[in-house]
Amino acid sequence: MPCVNKNMPKILMPIGDASETLDTFYAYYRLPEDGFEVVTAGPEARLYHTVLHEIPPNADVPWDITQERPGYHLKASVAFRDLRAEDFAGMFISGGRAPEYLRYDQHLLRVTREICSMKKPLACLCHGIEILSAADCIRGKKVTTVPKCALDAAQGGAVYVDAPVVADGLIVTARGYQDNTELLRQFIALLKKSK
Amino acid sequence: MPCVNKNMPKILMPIGDASETLDTFYAYYRLPEDGFEVVTAGPEARLYHTVLHEIPPNADVPWDITQERPGYHLKASVAFRDLRAEDFAGMFISGGRAPEYLRYDQHLLRVTREICSMKKPLACLCHGIEILSAADCIRGKKVTTVPKCALDAAQGGAVYVDAPVVADGLIVTARGYQDNTELLRQFIALLKKSK
Amino acid sequence: MPCVNKNMPKILMPIGDASETLDTFYAYYRLPEDGFEVVTAGPEARLYHTVLHEIPPNADVPWDITQERPGYHLKASVAFRDLRAEDFAGMFISGGRAPEYLRYDQHLLRVTREICSMKKPLACLCHGIEILSAADCIRGKKVTTVPKCALDAAQGGAVYVDAPVVADGLIVTARGYQDNTELLRQFIALLKKSK
Amino acid sequence: MPCVNKNMPKILMPIGDASETLDTFYAYYRLPEDGFEVVTAGPEARLYHTVLHEIPPNADVPWDITQERPGYHLKASVAFRDLRAEDFAGMFISGGRAPEYLRYDQHLLRVTREICSMKKPLACLCHGIEILSAADCIRGKKVTTVPKCALDAAQGGAVYVDAPVVADGLIVTARGYQDNTELLRQFIALLKKSK
Amino acid sequence: MPCVNKNMPKILMPIGDASETLDTFYAYYRLPEDGFEVVTAGPEARLYHTVLHEIPPNADVPWDITQERPGYHLKASVAFRDLRAEDFAGMFISGGRAPEYLRYDQHLLRVTREICSMKKPLACLCHGIEILSAADCIRGKKVTTVPKCALDAAQGGAVYVDAPVVADGLIVTARGYQDNTELLRQFIALLKKSK
Amino acid sequence: MPCVNKNMPKILMPIGDASETLDTFYAYYRLPEDGFEVVTAGPEARLYHTVLHEIPPNADVPWDITQERPGYHLKASVAFRDLRAEDFAGMFISGGRAPEYLRYDQHLLRVTREICSMKKPLACLCHGIEILSAADCIRGKKVTTVPKCALDAAQGGAVYVDAPVVADGLIVTARGYQDNTELLRQFIALLKKSK
Repeated sequence: MPCVNKNMPKILMPIGDASETLDTFYAYYRLPEDGFEVVTAGPEARLYHTVLHEIPPNADVPWDITQERPGYHLKASVAFRDLRAEDFAGMFISGGRAPEYLRYDQHLLRVTREICSMKKPLACLCHGIEILSAADCIRGKKVTTVPKCALDAAQGGAVYVDAPVVADGLIVTARGYQDNTELLRQFIALLKKSK
Repeated sequence: MPCVNKNMPKILMPIGDASETLDTFYAYYRLPEDGFEVVTAGPEARLYHTVLHEIPPNADVPWDITQERPGYHLKASVAFRDLRAEDFAGMFISGGRAPEYLRYDQHLLRVTREICSMKKPLACLCHGIEILSAADCIRGKKVTTVPKCALDAAQGGAVYVDAPVVADGLIVTARGYQDNTELLRQFIALLKKSK
Repeated sequence: MPCVNKNMPKILMPIGDASETLDTFYAYYRLPEDGFEVVTAGPEARLYHTVLHEIPPNADVPWDITQERPGYHLKASVAFRDLRAEDFAGMFISGGRAPEYLRYDQHLLRVTREICSMKKPLACLCHGIEILSAADCIRGKKVTTVPKCALDAAQGGAVYVDAPVVADGLIVTARGYQDNTELLRQFIALLKKSK
Repeated sequence: MPCVNKNMPKILMPIGDASETLDTFYAYYRLPEDGFEVVTAGPEARLYHTVLHEIPPNADVPWDITQERPGYHLKASVAFRDLRAEDFAGMFISGGRAPEYLRYDQHLLRVTREICSMKKPLACLCHGIEILSAADCIRGKKVTTVPKCALDAAQGGAVYVDAPVVADGLIVTARGYQDNTELLRQFIALLKKSK
Repeated sequence: MPCVNKNMPKILMPIGDASETLDTFYAYYRLPEDGFEVVTAGPEARLYHTVLHEIPPNADVPWDITQERPGYHLKASVAFRDLRAEDFAGMFISGGRAPEYLRYDQHLLRVTREICSMKKPLACLCHGIEILSAADCIRGKKVTTVPKCALDAAQGGAVYVDAPVVADGLIVTARGYQDNTELLRQFIALLKKSK
Repeated sequence: MPCVNKNMPKILMPIGDASETLDTFYAYYRLPEDGFEVVTAGPEARLYHTVLHEIPPNADVPWDITQERPGYHLKASVAFRDLRAEDFAGMFISGGRAPEYLRYDQHLLRVTREICSMKKPLACLCHGIEILSAADCIRGKKVTTVPKCALDAAQGGAVYVDAPVVADGLIVTARGYQDNTELLRQFIALLKKSK
């Protein structure tokens, strides 16, 4: 687990069952390298199941979309209800099937909206857009996401852009884990500029 | 496979990779019993993977939402691009992860809209609502779906009702496969009344 | 779960570990539609594992017979030892690997025989024939089953017929879940005639 | 693979999809140690899937019977139709779900009956009894098998004995792979005496 | 389980999580046939997970090395710390991923060295060589193992020989489970000669 | 996939079947962020299987070591035989079961030795140490690795240090993916200093 330091600025990372593995763990290890502590939060402070989403190559029967397989486990260190926006320097939202149910948690929506309105940087990839859409944080903004979530972005009032990574103000979004490199580069730049 | 008869009225059943197993197969076997031929359609006329969605009981690490596991395979007998609304007496839309990507297929959206506007009965459960929402067929209507898709219903302009099965005009919707019994009872009643 | 009503006639459905998923769940949802309550019973009143039996299409190494994969779970609401034949209007026996061990339960055999001798309708598919054979309920009768269980039918004194669905008096049998439609159509007709 | 020698006496081992792994591979490696070449035979001369049958210990949801999981693959070196009883010094029949479908192969039944009538030793464990029963080789004989196959033994006219290993004349039977040690000890003794 | 007799000479079989299934179970059943009781020992006296290592035939995406899949479970009847070399007539070490961590257990290393220095026969296959290497029991000896462990043999001071089975004094080694037959033949001969 | 630029310095990443998922993919996405192109290389230029290694939390039957499960696939863009050390600015070696067989590839060993002797930075975690040990690149150096590979380090002449991350000259090593953050921080610092 990344080192934790009392004086490190904190990044909120909401997780739940079926959070995508590489979507979640890349940022989880990357952010502490630049001095940001990742605080995993979930509906409860407990272990959650991450999952792998991959289109199986050369399959006997081809897949149009990703197949889901069991991933690593990850512990949420705090429950959504105990989150305070002022404790965080930014927020990182990963994908998978988790955002679809997390987006109804009123505590998560509250803290997401507060982080947005406090002008703190926010990164999001893949299905994570469903949380931003439900929190009404992307209205009028340009965003990207995995193509099959373009509608979730539009339904939240955003303009979907078909590009690997899209930044609009303090919100930077990406299609999926294949864009981890650029997403984190831009997100960390925003975090540093915001300090 | 259910018996097929040239003179049987046909029900369109869109499927894709990750269509939910019991959501799909119950109606698949049930409709022919009352003389309705089920026509499975997909992005292409080929085999697709269905999946099981179940919250694993007594799990070592509990699941908030369903776990996904491999299901049976099902062949789409026709591609969406070759569908004509006038060939069908109604439409049945199952759930799983398939509707999330199927909802961008313009051929499927066209035929769904035509079936709605032709006043033909339409049944839908679970994530299937995403197709109805994308096709703009539920605006102003009362519908139900699995709770985590309530927002997909709302984003399509529908009024989400927290009930097992909800009928509004010719559209009958259900939460999930646990409501198969009542959903098919009402859908078949609508189909018979429409004849 | 299907609605339960005190005044609904009850259908006994024996289940156990490795009951086949579609064999079991189709009837489980179908019978309540016509007013029959399904009472699941097992060696104990507890959760059981259903399994999927499917010949994997296009497999790297082909399969002559079905592959077995984990299915949904289903709770037996009552233990075999607590069953009374007079409480039931009929009986439905699904397949999978469960019947092979359930057929030694003396309580299940007793109630199966009583249901037969009380002239109540009985439906059975696939390996379910092993229970009817063990209970000596098919002697002299025409039945069908999955081809690899033809011998189990013969060993119970029945005449195996190679057809999708076969009815002989009050017993209607089918090869497997691909015959769900016709099996339930005929079984429900028998149940209604018997009332 | 065990060494093969032109002058070694041969033991016929029928296999198919879902032959049980330890039932099959123990004898496969054991017999050549005493100079007996194992000839695997199947419906076709091709690769087959073996499977593991084990009651999962400490399961979240307990299993009354074994769970099935994928095992190793094993190649049948010859097709049943090409077998001649005179080429073999004996026969070894393993269990799993394979015997249930292999027992309808007329070539396998023919060669099994011929091996019996030629007074050559025959070993069998678990579901393998279904082949002996179908070939009518155990009528009037004392045999054992896994308890859930006791009826398959009885239906073949045998007397089921509840014991780990049972020998009656040239046929030695066992309950399952936990009895591999004693089954092979007795079978090899019979083979040596028969030479 | 193999019969256990107070007067039978005992063979020590160290196991752990990820011991290879066929590597372990063949000897487990074979040794008692000749009057040797197998005593399974582990870090603790508890259940362990065995695993299957097999190169999947005809895979969509080929494998250079074996794939790992879940195997049967096996109970260690005694903990390493409670072992005494004088209780054993010999030792059998199977492969898989277990030896890699077992080789740090000081109790296991102690008893392995004592068995070697007491001139008792020792058999080993595949990754089991890692335990012999760590215990410094193969220095200057000719051994074999799976090719990818040749270096582990060399690092223990042994001379790696590319052959199915290699005996040097009282130590007999084999590449993997495909050599079970010859390995056990030679090991049992050594055990009998040592008595 | 990370952006590729002709003028970017290149980092060699050897992969094979059973390379550990998070060991491999974290560096794969991280290095391009600082302008280093990752060149995946394997025995052949083809797709490889990565695997997840995790101790399953709260397991019914506990695991002493990690369980292996299927991961994502990753393509090697070049075969080992076509590698030239002068094309690279450094090398990153991940873990899993792959290094155990990759360490015999003479082309990989050659290029690894050349990269070492050219004083280019090299990072390694977990089982990756087996490649450095086989290439004789860590003799006399302080290194760390997963505890169960401490012996592999020692057998290569290194001094094993029980710490999360250890740097000695241009070689920086880590225990496993939980140390991704610090490993990459130090490796990138070395790479930048070397330019």
